[in-house]
Amino acid sequence: MQINVETKPVTNTGYDARKKRLVETIDRLYHRDAKAPLQKLIARLHPADLAAILDDLPTEHVTDIFHLIPDNRRAADVLGQLSEDLRIRVISESPVDKLARVFEGLPPDDLADIMGTLPEEQRTQLMALLGRESKDELENLLQYDPDSAGGIMTTDFFSLPHTLTVEEAVANIRRRADVEMVFYLYLTDEAGCLVGVVSMRQLLINPADSPLHKIMNRRVMKVTTSSDQTTVAMLVEKYRLLAVPVVDDNNVLVGMVTVDDVIEVIEEETTRDILKMAGTSESETLTHSAFKIARIRLPWLLAAFIGGLAATGVIGQFEEILAQVLVLSAFLPVIMGMAGNVGVQSATVAVRGLATGAIDVRDTVPLVLKELRVGLVLGTFYGCIIGIYGYMVHHSLQLGQVVGLTILGNMTGAALLAVLLPMMFQRLKVDPAVATGPFVTTAIDILGVLNYFVIASWIYHL
Amino acid sequence: MQINVETKPVTNTGYDARKKRLVETIDRLYHRDAKAPLQKLIARLHPADLAAILDDLPTEHVTDIFHLIPDNRRAADVLGQLSEDLRIRVISESPVDKLARVFEGLPPDDLADIMGTLPEEQRTQLMALLGRESKDELENLLQYDPDSAGGIMTTDFFSLPHTLTVEEAVANIRRRADVEMVFYLYLTDEAGCLVGVVSMRQLLINPADSPLHKIMNRRVMKVTTSSDQTTVAMLVEKYRLLAVPVVDDNNVLVGMVTVDDVIEVIEEETTRDILKMAGTSESETLTHSAFKIARIRLPWLLAAFIGGLAATGVIGQFEEILAQVLVLSAFLPVIMGMAGNVGVQSATVAVRGLATGAIDVRDTVPLVLKELRVGLVLGTFYGCIIGIYGYMVHHSLQLGQVVGLTILGNMTGAALLAVLLPMMFQRLKVDPAVATGPFVTTAIDILGVLNYFVIASWIYHL
Repeated sequence: MQINVETKPVTNTGYDARKKRLVETIDRLYHRDAKAPLQKLIARLHPADLAAILDDLPTEHVTDIFHLIPDNRRAADVLGQLSEDLRIRVISESPVDKLARVFEGLPPDDLADIMGTLPEEQRTQLMALLGRESKDELENLLQYDPDSAGGIMTTDFFSLPHTLTVEEAVANIRRRADVEMVFYLYLTDEAGCLVGVVSMRQLLINPADSPLHKIMNRRVMKVTTSSDQTTVAMLVEKYRLLAVPVVDDNNVLVGMVTVDDVIEVIEEETTRDILKMAGTSESETLTHSAFKIARIRLPWLLAAFIGGLAATGVIGQFEEILAQVLVLSAFLPVIMGMAGNVGVQSATVAVRGLATGAIDVRDTVPLVLKELRVGLVLGTFYGCIIGIYGYMVHHSLQLGQVVGLTILGNMTGAALLAVLLPMMFQRLKVDPAVATGPFVTTAIDILGVLNYFVIASWIYHL
Repeated sequence: MQINVETKPVTNTGYDARKKRLVETIDRLYHRDAKAPLQKLIARLHPADLAAILDDLPTEHVTDIFHLIPDNRRAADVLGQLSEDLRIRVISESPVDKLARVFEGLPPDDLADIMGTLPEEQRTQLMALLGRESKDELENLLQYDPDSAGGIMTTDFFSLPHTLTVEEAVANIRRRADVEMVFYLYLTDEAGCLVGVVSMRQLLINPADSPLHKIMNRRVMKVTTSSDQTTVAMLVEKYRLLAVPVVDDNNVLVGMVTVDDVIEVIEEETTRDILKMAGTSESETLTHSAFKIARIRLPWLLAAFIGGLAATGVIGQFEEILAQVLVLSAFLPVIMGMAGNVGVQSATVAVRGLATGAIDVRDTVPLVLKELRVGLVLGTFYGCIIGIYGYMVHHSLQLGQVVGLTILGNMTGAALLAVLLPMMFQRLKVDPAVATGPFVTTAIDILGVLNYFVIASWIYHL
């Protein structure tokens, strides 16, 4: 995290217009080969803005323009914020020695993330170019699970011995303008163990000769390298922290996770949940081939496929009724569609509620009762309408009864099932997001079709 | 935001166990009427932990226990973090004078949020009890759209005239230990206009007699009170800020939005998107009655219902074929299900990609081509399987051809439609999340059924 107050102004109104103008200007300067003004312009932009602009420029020019960034630290910042596709392209098109210099300017956690996305061969080649120290640090970081605190932490933090005074601490901070340390100062003992924390503000308001261990807070919120990233995110969110220190199994301070990393974790986890709910996976991107994406989606669709064939079998059992009351098949789509849709609504409310903590497993009974009532209300409403429709359009009271009762039963059942399954999954410690995918929909389809024909057999006395 | 490093230790392993133990202990002490030890225990807990514990206690005791919190500032903190249901309960069960004292301890933005959730009558009653100053501040805050920067900002920030020196600024900070100001110090001119910003760290490392306007950064990222909350969130996320100042139309500094508020905005917006994708709305909670929830979901289901009836009509047109080839109706569920599922997958990938910025409208053509290929691959795979199944099980080459070709066509078409619609919605500045709801599913259903019977008429020469 770059806590950088020296940023360029962006008023949000007209932001897009400004960006578009910059893209055009840079493109024009590039075509005129006007290096000096181009370099000057680039140097004035915030790294995040420059990265967004590069993403919009013709891809074949991006590497050239990227290497006009005057200083390696800035170039590293921009590289870290490019979209993944473009980053891989820039890295593969750049001379390795230039890259190595840029990489030295990256915080170790960003470097590890970038290395993680590169093809094996390119990674080995680049690793060889890094200084001893960076390499050790990087290899150390790469050993952690990318979804753990160790995987998302930066090792580029700042800590001091707890035996120093406020004055000595301030002198130390003055000497280290480059590291990620702005709000909390972590304090360690001789063994490197985390023993306390002071805020910048405490340094400002305490007498210069106070020893840090007198003013520090000894009860530090911390996580270990193996803590799951969602745990870290929950901690930062719940206690409204700006950063949380990461210790190893011996309580030695080895890194920290900052709030901007946590925002990334939250977005990543949400994306994963959403895609899982739809029956696909987070690793699907524009760069993947159609075959690879198809392979990711195939297994989820298989569940729906097998369910669909089962429904075929169910209907096959009732061929006799169908032959006599042909119109029953015309109502199949609306009967399946209504139950499926109400099921998705209920399941989504439950899954999202569980993910944000708005509900938990202890709410199962009230939630299920609530959904039962919602399903009954909706089922009664649509059941009546479709019953009347069936009677009016097809002049058959029996048909009206069959479709009306089916919609009532299926919508109620779907709402119930769609909330029960995620709650059950949560209790079994299985991710409830999978419950809204093809599994629930398919279960609802089969049971719904079965219910339809059972009711039809009963009403038509067949 | 309380930037508070003085917090209780929570090791994440064993956190749930610790919480459970605390809930039990507090419950036991309450039943024994052991007020003194209860108060002592409560005073030692972090407000966020205490709020979580109260959420787990029997609701009828919560108000009593809440009023044992020794100081009003802490009580306010806890109240702000209770779940909405419980908060409303505690407020309605508390004596108003006690509440007024607690409310004085809340940051104005949190107070405005809480007031916003209260029934009209209770709100008016409580407003009357607040001090003149709090009331003005609150009424001021309540005038902003809750989804704007003005609606989420706090007015409890700290700013200083830019004419002071570093030393004077530090003296000021010492005197104000209570406000939300830890990382950035905003500087204003005589008219209260925002003119610059300095970080705590700059105060530490610059000479005591430097005037602030010499060391301040004049280019401050800022938003106006009417800026949309998603714009604020994007700004904080993109530039990795810890807070962003809010100015009015005359550039007068009126508040700030901190990163923890931004995390809330991100979660809120995501929940809204997810529920919209499922065809329901964010305002659905456990406290709503079943009728209210049914009313929220009804319109979305109506789209599916009308679509379903349309499909009924389509099938009605092909009754002749159905009568002769009865088995066609048995395949309706699997044909509709497969297209619907692949459509949801494609639409979700597109909608989430648009929401996170991973893709934008300029990617329409490559994305549509990609989905076309994915649909073809999946359609060919499942088309072949179901074609063989149809042929083997029902001993009809024609049936195999019909169902195989239909699955191929429908899955490809569904993938295509499901990515085209969100991209189109985005271009028309309509929220693409609505595109994955019942609308797309229903469109896919009708077109799919139509395609099925057209292919059947053609193959069976009927």
